[in-house]
Amino acid sequence: MTSPHDQILSGIVPPLCTPLTPDGQVDTTSLVRLTEHLLAGGVDGLFVLGSTGEVAFLTDEQRGVVIETVVDAVGGRVPVVAGVIDTTTPRVLPHLEQAAALGATAAVATAPFYTRTHPAEIARHFRLLAAATPLPIVAYDIPVSVGTKLDAELVARLASDGVIRALKDSSGDDAGLRRVILSTAASDVADFAILTGSELTVDAALSFGADGAVPGLGNVDPAGYVRLFAAAREDDWDTARAEQERLFAMFGLVTAGDPVRMGPASSALGAFKAALHLLGVIDSPRTSEPYVPLDADETRTVASFLETAGLL
Amino acid sequence: MTSPHDQILSGIVPPLCTPLTPDGQVDTTSLVRLTEHLLAGGVDGLFVLGSTGEVAFLTDEQRGVVIETVVDAVGGRVPVVAGVIDTTTPRVLPHLEQAAALGATAAVATAPFYTRTHPAEIARHFRLLAAATPLPIVAYDIPVSVGTKLDAELVARLASDGVIRALKDSSGDDAGLRRVILSTAASDVADFAILTGSELTVDAALSFGADGAVPGLGNVDPAGYVRLFAAAREDDWDTARAEQERLFAMFGLVTAGDPVRMGPASSALGAFKAALHLLGVIDSPRTSEPYVPLDADETRTVASFLETAGLL
Amino acid sequence: MTSPHDQILSGIVPPLCTPLTPDGQVDTTSLVRLTEHLLAGGVDGLFVLGSTGEVAFLTDEQRGVVIETVVDAVGGRVPVVAGVIDTTTPRVLPHLEQAAALGATAAVATAPFYTRTHPAEIARHFRLLAAATPLPIVAYDIPVSVGTKLDAELVARLASDGVIRALKDSSGDDAGLRRVILSTAASDVADFAILTGSELTVDAALSFGADGAVPGLGNVDPAGYVRLFAAAREDDWDTARAEQERLFAMFGLVTAGDPVRMGPASSALGAFKAALHLLGVIDSPRTSEPYVPLDADETRTVASFLETAGLL
Amino acid sequence: MTSPHDQILSGIVPPLCTPLTPDGQVDTTSLVRLTEHLLAGGVDGLFVLGSTGEVAFLTDEQRGVVIETVVDAVGGRVPVVAGVIDTTTPRVLPHLEQAAALGATAAVATAPFYTRTHPAEIARHFRLLAAATPLPIVAYDIPVSVGTKLDAELVARLASDGVIRALKDSSGDDAGLRRVILSTAASDVADFAILTGSELTVDAALSFGADGAVPGLGNVDPAGYVRLFAAAREDDWDTARAEQERLFAMFGLVTAGDPVRMGPASSALGAFKAALHLLGVIDSPRTSEPYVPLDADETRTVASFLETAGLL
Repeated sequence: MTSPHDQILSGIVPPLCTPLTPDGQVDTTSLVRLTEHLLAGGVDGLFVLGSTGEVAFLTDEQRGVVIETVVDAVGGRVPVVAGVIDTTTPRVLPHLEQAAALGATAAVATAPFYTRTHPAEIARHFRLLAAATPLPIVAYDIPVSVGTKLDAELVARLASDGVIRALKDSSGDDAGLRRVILSTAASDVADFAILTGSELTVDAALSFGADGAVPGLGNVDPAGYVRLFAAAREDDWDTARAEQERLFAMFGLVTAGDPVRMGPASSALGAFKAALHLLGVIDSPRTSEPYVPLDADETRTVASFLETAGLL
Repeated sequence: MTSPHDQILSGIVPPLCTPLTPDGQVDTTSLVRLTEHLLAGGVDGLFVLGSTGEVAFLTDEQRGVVIETVVDAVGGRVPVVAGVIDTTTPRVLPHLEQAAALGATAAVATAPFYTRTHPAEIARHFRLLAAATPLPIVAYDIPVSVGTKLDAELVARLASDGVIRALKDSSGDDAGLRRVILSTAASDVADFAILTGSELTVDAALSFGADGAVPGLGNVDPAGYVRLFAAAREDDWDTARAEQERLFAMFGLVTAGDPVRMGPASSALGAFKAALHLLGVIDSPRTSEPYVPLDADETRTVASFLETAGLL
Repeated sequence: MTSPHDQILSGIVPPLCTPLTPDGQVDTTSLVRLTEHLLAGGVDGLFVLGSTGEVAFLTDEQRGVVIETVVDAVGGRVPVVAGVIDTTTPRVLPHLEQAAALGATAAVATAPFYTRTHPAEIARHFRLLAAATPLPIVAYDIPVSVGTKLDAELVARLASDGVIRALKDSSGDDAGLRRVILSTAASDVADFAILTGSELTVDAALSFGADGAVPGLGNVDPAGYVRLFAAAREDDWDTARAEQERLFAMFGLVTAGDPVRMGPASSALGAFKAALHLLGVIDSPRTSEPYVPLDADETRTVASFLETAGLL
Repeated sequence: MTSPHDQILSGIVPPLCTPLTPDGQVDTTSLVRLTEHLLAGGVDGLFVLGSTGEVAFLTDEQRGVVIETVVDAVGGRVPVVAGVIDTTTPRVLPHLEQAAALGATAAVATAPFYTRTHPAEIARHFRLLAAATPLPIVAYDIPVSVGTKLDAELVARLASDGVIRALKDSSGDDAGLRRVILSTAASDVADFAILTGSELTVDAALSFGADGAVPGLGNVDPAGYVRLFAAAREDDWDTARAEQERLFAMFGLVTAGDPVRMGPASSALGAFKAALHLLGVIDSPRTSEPYVPLDADETRTVASFLETAGLL
């Protein structure tokens, strides 16, 4: 087993939603409240500017506001890692500089996208990023957004070379996740941290060696995921499974939006924000443009999921 | 037939490569030389900051330098349209503002990417962009980069509503391109301009009603595409076809790069720039990071294609 | 230009629908009537047991009935090529034997499917097929069904080695189709026949060198495609284009089926058969299981397309 | 928890390889030896004519030989389920009849393939199959071969209606697998059996409620998977995990084949058969055409994996 104290991340690290004001600006008051909500839930770290944080919808300036607000609110209590999501190396570099300047603990980067890439180009991308910053780099595997899957051997090699210090795996491919876990273990990269972004199989991932999870639903119910993680750490798999199944059922809220009117991202992000609004954590459920907002009926559906889960 | 004088674009509109200095800055001297090379070839317009222009690899500041340099060099001789490529509406808006401020004739925008999208969200995206700028909007259909295909009916509706004024179709789906041509013709959107980005079937696209083409290879041989277009306009399809076949053969240079060492984009962009360097148009064949550069052998392959095509 | 008399196929070669009785058997009376309808339309050949012929829904015995019926009805007036569609080499071989025994002129085979394939395996597949039969082999490129695209170089090599004698390209990738045309022309495979299955861009494909077309809509309006082909052969591209545009509009009938109730194949096949039924060519519009049948309203939509096209 | 005695399948049910003679016929002597090898390993059932059994490469007659041989060899000791894999309903029906006539316990069917399908058509397919046979139907979810994923709600509905009695999930999507487990549990379909085909995460799948596994590698090391399953049933997750990790490492043998010369299926199937040949279970490592065979070096790689795993 790896020693957690050497890892830059472990445990439950929710990818924060980015609360917006009704006119689309970052709502820093709500963002601070969300931060406190998560810390009160017992989370082990915070991931700002991920896909759930609508990073792809925020301007560079807004991204800065998010990092600054959360780093300031956290005050060093837990690590704050920041997404530096952009199409290619030269466009990621300024985000990396901003994240370092504003005090993020680590930076989370994907493979290049929009352009088609080759494994050699992906490797070069991460090596150039690592060379350009003092921040540890977290590789973010999210094929649904990026169009390519990070190869397990490539991840193991970059880990072994110290280029990346952690992986957030949102690929949904648990056999692949396990391949990375076994490969990095075999390479004796003891402090490489592996977190799953698959929020519906966190107990399973922990059971085969993941170090933690980055669950979007953790915005809504951080304490639930924290209980799940604690049970797993104590080898109490029945409790972990029961908690995961409760969260699995609650996750149904992401389908609240009518698929004829909107896509799955509008629905899921809208539902997370509606839930946080219903719970009094954020002031407005507004999502970014061009997402389609949930209507009153759809919001009631979200509420009913929260009630069933015992949160409302 | 539409009246060309009402369209914002028609004919041959190459997507300019962005020449870089050996240390990765925009090489404005070479960019001006490239502009003159294209105008000397007789092109009808210029498209800066497209995929071929490595738009996804340029910082916001570099994008500004490119627009400014080309608009200035052209001095109004032909339209200069500028890519405003970014993930979502809020991130495209600043590019749109920059393009307008720097004198671009029109702005070229894709559907949102990185995030998964629904047709309703894509429509909302284009409507919000159009409402935010005085520039005409050109829709850019490039599924290989964006992950979704623009639906022909959606394009026709946006055209009919005046939201978009032109389409650049780089989907490779000629039946789909033709559907847009027939749908917009049926909607009586007389001045809607439809350009194909499929540089290997330009004669065919013109034969069934496209208004022009945006050929990446047009950087290297603008005069060839201009001859092709002129022949097509005179219904001299044998000449158009012969020219297209010569260009088709030359296009083989995009495979110069070794597929074991690099991806197809490194190879294609590297080959275009190597060709422009060999022709004396740009000072360095450098491509952006993390593209893998062509080596000496691969560059000789590019040279041999130029020789066969009669350009070297 | 190739000499048509050496090619095994050229011109308009519709992929015959397979008429069924209300209880799902091959309706040989209607099949003979359909054959005569197509020959009366002036077609140059017949392709039985293609995707449009519901080959994937017919038992081995039914496939035999179809070949026998059509070969017999044609009596040598035009070539009759037969699909031998199945998952892999050993399962295709019995179809090949049956097609030869029943007098088909050539056999049409895809790459292996259900299993994932490598180009070397695809090449081996076609070589083994060719070695096992006296029938000429037509390669059928249909990625939407098979999951892989036939590579242009592979096709050219198999053509050059005499393994395949023709290509039916239903990939929708016109640049790829053209690459095959130019590659085989360069290899001096004078009698290799290249037919497009993209029924909406036949004029374009003919303009850049295709030898013919295999249009599903040719079941409904064979004479239209024959006129299109004749005009193209006389370099009368305006007439060819006008005919293609009329057929393009008529092709809209394939969307008659409600997409909430059924998939695009149920709708398209159902519409072709409804049209043939409305025209009195076949006795029943029945499609195979588990296709969902068109209802009365949807059938009226088909009728209205036929009326607009001047066929009803 | 479901009562295992009501389920048609549970535990370890390997998908049998189909041994071939050097000239490509079913090697029934080796097939009987393989059957005894698996039963000696303690497996709970046998799945003949799956993807691992090269079902897509066997003629109808050969399929019959396989079922007959294994049913006969097993003599009722465990259930023998048989794949009835073919493109569509009418082509699956004869396989279904054959499987019933030859004494298979249940039939394993995929969604239609080659043709594009809609959920309504997939549902209709399974309902028609179930209505046509006395055999219980096992739904086989294998998107990599079939091109579509079985929707969790559709599976739950078909289970609830008694149309299907079990699921073999080879989708690799563990969140989706779990959704089916929770949905069918919620529908109170107590005897619906859910088996994972993801042989690298069997412990995880069992931990969240799967009833068993169908591991291709179970041909080579049935006893390993049987130990894994037994440990899981006793809630000894450390032992289950250790066994799974040993099997995970051994699974590396599927990459023995050179990816330049062959595809992943040639390599994986070739390696399974090479391993069985090295272990003396089958007489020839031959795979079906057009698979590319492993060479001597590649076979040595397979042997080294067996040695590391303690099997040779």
